[in-house]
Amino acid sequence: MKKYGFGVDIGGTTCKIGLFHTTGEIVEKWEIPTNTQEQGKNILTDIAASLNQKFSQKGIDREEIEGIGIGLPGPVRADGVVPVCVNLGWKDINVSQEMQKLMDGMRAEAGNDANVAALGEMWQGGGKGCKNVVMVTLGTGVGGGIIIDGKIVSGSNGAGGEIGHITVNPHETISCNCGRRGCLEQYASATGITRLANEYLAKEHQKSLLDEEEISAKSVFDAYKQKDAAAEEIVEKFARILGSALSNIACVADPEVFVIGGGVSKAGKPLLDAVEKYYRRAAFSSCKDTRFALASLGNDAGIYGCVKLILE
Amino acid sequence: MKKYGFGVDIGGTTCKIGLFHTTGEIVEKWEIPTNTQEQGKNILTDIAASLNQKFSQKGIDREEIEGIGIGLPGPVRADGVVPVCVNLGWKDINVSQEMQKLMDGMRAEAGNDANVAALGEMWQGGGKGCKNVVMVTLGTGVGGGIIIDGKIVSGSNGAGGEIGHITVNPHETISCNCGRRGCLEQYASATGITRLANEYLAKEHQKSLLDEEEISAKSVFDAYKQKDAAAEEIVEKFARILGSALSNIACVADPEVFVIGGGVSKAGKPLLDAVEKYYRRAAFSSCKDTRFALASLGNDAGIYGCVKLILE
Repeated sequence: MKKYGFGVDIGGTTCKIGLFHTTGEIVEKWEIPTNTQEQGKNILTDIAASLNQKFSQKGIDREEIEGIGIGLPGPVRADGVVPVCVNLGWKDINVSQEMQKLMDGMRAEAGNDANVAALGEMWQGGGKGCKNVVMVTLGTGVGGGIIIDGKIVSGSNGAGGEIGHITVNPHETISCNCGRRGCLEQYASATGITRLANEYLAKEHQKSLLDEEEISAKSVFDAYKQKDAAAEEIVEKFARILGSALSNIACVADPEVFVIGGGVSKAGKPLLDAVEKYYRRAAFSSCKDTRFALASLGNDAGIYGCVKLILE
Repeated sequence: MKKYGFGVDIGGTTCKIGLFHTTGEIVEKWEIPTNTQEQGKNILTDIAASLNQKFSQKGIDREEIEGIGIGLPGPVRADGVVPVCVNLGWKDINVSQEMQKLMDGMRAEAGNDANVAALGEMWQGGGKGCKNVVMVTLGTGVGGGIIIDGKIVSGSNGAGGEIGHITVNPHETISCNCGRRGCLEQYASATGITRLANEYLAKEHQKSLLDEEEISAKSVFDAYKQKDAAAEEIVEKFARILGSALSNIACVADPEVFVIGGGVSKAGKPLLDAVEKYYRRAAFSSCKDTRFALASLGNDAGIYGCVKLILE
C-alpha cells in the first residue's frame, strides 16, 4: 500500500478535501468553492488543480499516492457513472474516469456522500473495528449508509441505504419531499422533530420550557435533558419511530453497530439511549443486542470514507 | 475451476443432496434421512458416507470436486460456526470444519438454508444474471435471503434476510411465533393468508366461493383467479402488506430483482402482479421499476445455492 490518499467530498457550495495517510490519519484538510456554473463542468478540473498544487507544495511524489476518493450528493452507479446530480448540475458523467484522466491516470473512485460518510465512520469513527455498519444521519433530512463486509451497499439504482424514505406511517397526510407520505425522514430529521414538537405543543399540554423557546431539534433535546415533560413526550415519539425503523433494518442487514450521526446527533448520549430503548423493545430476538454508537468524525466523515474507497 | 460440486441441504427430516457440474447443471440428486438422535451427531457422518459412495459409484476422482456446500435450518456465523440449530439438535458446531475433516480436507462451506436458496435462485433460477437479489419465501412462515454483489448477507447475528420478522403492523394483538406482534409473516405466509381469509369471511360479506371451501392460501388464490370478490379483498390486503414491506426493503438493499418463492408462490403470475402493483405504489422513486420474478428452482434452490457457496 502506498503512503497517501486524497478524499474529496463535493458539496453544493464547497468541496472538502483531505490529504490522508493510508493508515487513516489526516495530514491536512482544506476547502475550495464548488463552481456549479455551466452544468458544473469545472468542478473536477478545479479539484484536480487543487490536488496537484497540494502535492507539489508538500513535496509528495505522485508514486506515493494511492488515489483519489470522491463523494458527491447523488447516486453513483457501480461503473462510476453519475446519472444525474441536481446539486452539481451533472448528468451522465463518469466521475471516476474523468478524474483519473485529469490526474494523468491516478486511480479514482466515486461514491454517494451519505454512503462514503458511513464508510468513513466504519474506518475511523463510531464504527471502528466493525465491517457491518448501518449509519443513520439525522440532519435536515435522514440519510443513511449500509456497509456489509466492509463495502458500501450502493444498490442497483443507487438507493441502497436510503433509509430516510422507509415508510413508517402509511396514515400520514402531509407529504415528504420525495412526494410520498409517512417517510422516516418526516419524523426523525431535525425538521421532523420540530414538526413533532409543534404538533405536540399546539395541543393542550403542561407548562413547558419549550413554550418560551424557538422550536428546533436542539431546543427539544435541551429541554429533554432538563426532564421537561413535553420534551420527553416528543423525544419518546421520535425515538419510538426511529428505534422501530432500525429494528426493521436489522431484519434485512443485521449490522454489528448502528452509528448515529448528523446535526441532531449532537444531542449525544441521551438521544442514543432513547433510540436504543425503543430499538431493543422492537427488535427481533437475535438482533436485540446490536450496539449503538455516536458518529465521531462529524463533517469529516465524508473525506475519511472517500480515502477508504480507494484502499479496497 | 474443477468439474463437480456437491450441494447438501439439511432439513429436519431429510437431507437433499445434489451432484452438480460447476457450470450449474445438476448431474444427480438424491435424499438421505436426517438422523437427529443424540444431538444430531451422526448427521454429517451420514452425509460424508453418502458423498463418498456417490463419487466412487460415479467413478469421479476426488481431484475433480471443487467442494461441498451445506445449507441448514439455523443461523451460521461467518466463521462457519452454528451456535444453535434446534431442528438438528446442534449446538456450537463448526459445520464446514467438521465436514472438511470427514472428507479428508475437501473444501466445505455452510450457510443458512433460506440464504443459500436465495443464492441458488440468483445463480440458476428466477434471479439468473443478477448479482443483487432479495428472495422472499412464502411458506408456512416468511423467509428471506439477501444477496448483495453475488454474496449472501448473513448478518452479524445470522439475522440477515429475516424479512418475515419485519414489523408491518404495530397495532397487531395476536403474537407471532417469534413472540413479537405484527410481523410480516403473520400476513404474508400461507398461515397468514389463511388467517386474513378467516377474518374477512367471519364478517358479513357477499356470497363467495370460499364459503364452501376449506380455507388455505391455495383456495384463496384459486378463488382470486375466478374473480371472487371476497378473495380479491383478501389478496389485495396481503399484496398491500407485502408490497409495502418490500418497498421498505428496497430503501435498504435496493436489489435488481425480488424473487418470490415458497409454496404460496405456486399461485404464480396473478400473485406476482398483485404484489408488484402495491410495491410500485409504495416504492421510493428510484426503485419503482425493480423487477419481480417467480422462483424457478422449487425445493432444489437450496442445493443449487449450496454449490454456488463453494464457487466463490
